[in-house]
Amino acid sequence: MAETVFDKILSGEIPSHCVYQDEHVYSFLDIHPIARGHTLVIPRERVAFLHELSDAAAGALGRALPRICRAVRAASGAEHYNVLQNNGAPAHQAVFHVHFHVIPRLGERGLGIGWKPGGLEPEDARRLVEAMRAALEAED
Amino acid sequence: MAETVFDKILSGEIPSHCVYQDEHVYSFLDIHPIARGHTLVIPRERVAFLHELSDAAAGALGRALPRICRAVRAASGAEHYNVLQNNGAPAHQAVFHVHFHVIPRLGERGLGIGWKPGGLEPEDARRLVEAMRAALEAED
Repeated sequence: MAETVFDKILSGEIPSHCVYQDEHVYSFLDIHPIARGHTLVIPRERVAFLHELSDAAAGALGRALPRICRAVRAASGAEHYNVLQNNGAPAHQAVFHVHFHVIPRLGERGLGIGWKPGGLEPEDARRLVEAMRAALEAED
Repeated sequence: MAETVFDKILSGEIPSHCVYQDEHVYSFLDIHPIARGHTLVIPRERVAFLHELSDAAAGALGRALPRICRAVRAASGAEHYNVLQNNGAPAHQAVFHVHFHVIPRLGERGLGIGWKPGGLEPEDARRLVEAMRAALEAED
């Protein structure tokens, strides 16, 4: 994949407001926050999409997220928040290096969510589960 | 925290379309999908919010997510998708047991995102980072 602005942040070429870092994970303030305290959590591993992330990086990101959520809550005073990770331009991804947004909900500020639920037909559910299990088994 | 419908799904009292499970993680189809293949990923650990999750459960969830994203892509045919995790009713949480949504983007179907970016004043960034680092250091 191509280099992104996050590689320059990871290398220090572009400065960032670093909140947390470890062997696999780097976390910093979003410079275009949609609520005060909006924070990004990224792997050092250079992959564009979550489905490409290695087990080691994904496990480390998972472990870091609750810690960073606690820190965001403490610093922003927000009780509530959303965690969002987008994959692909049609899904609102803008920087093609995996990143999780931790977004405080502060009154009117925060993530806007559009939700139009549909139904799940038993026969289609069966087909989906079969295809997903087959995909997972093919990995082992 | 109170028992939720997810405890009954984990115990098998309420049936679910299980996609994946391991020691820490359970994943199943959302029965009110906002796009075909919409899948939930939850810890077996009974906590309401991500900031409450143990390291072990959070690491396992993190590791499982890319695998489940690959399976959702394979089964739904969606190239693009969003991963969303909500904390608190004002942040659109409806079931108070941690859950990640994996939501395919299929044409007009998928997650609606409202995004109103603001700015980040250097002085405020400094204050936020200081507060976050203090919170993280207090954990160690």
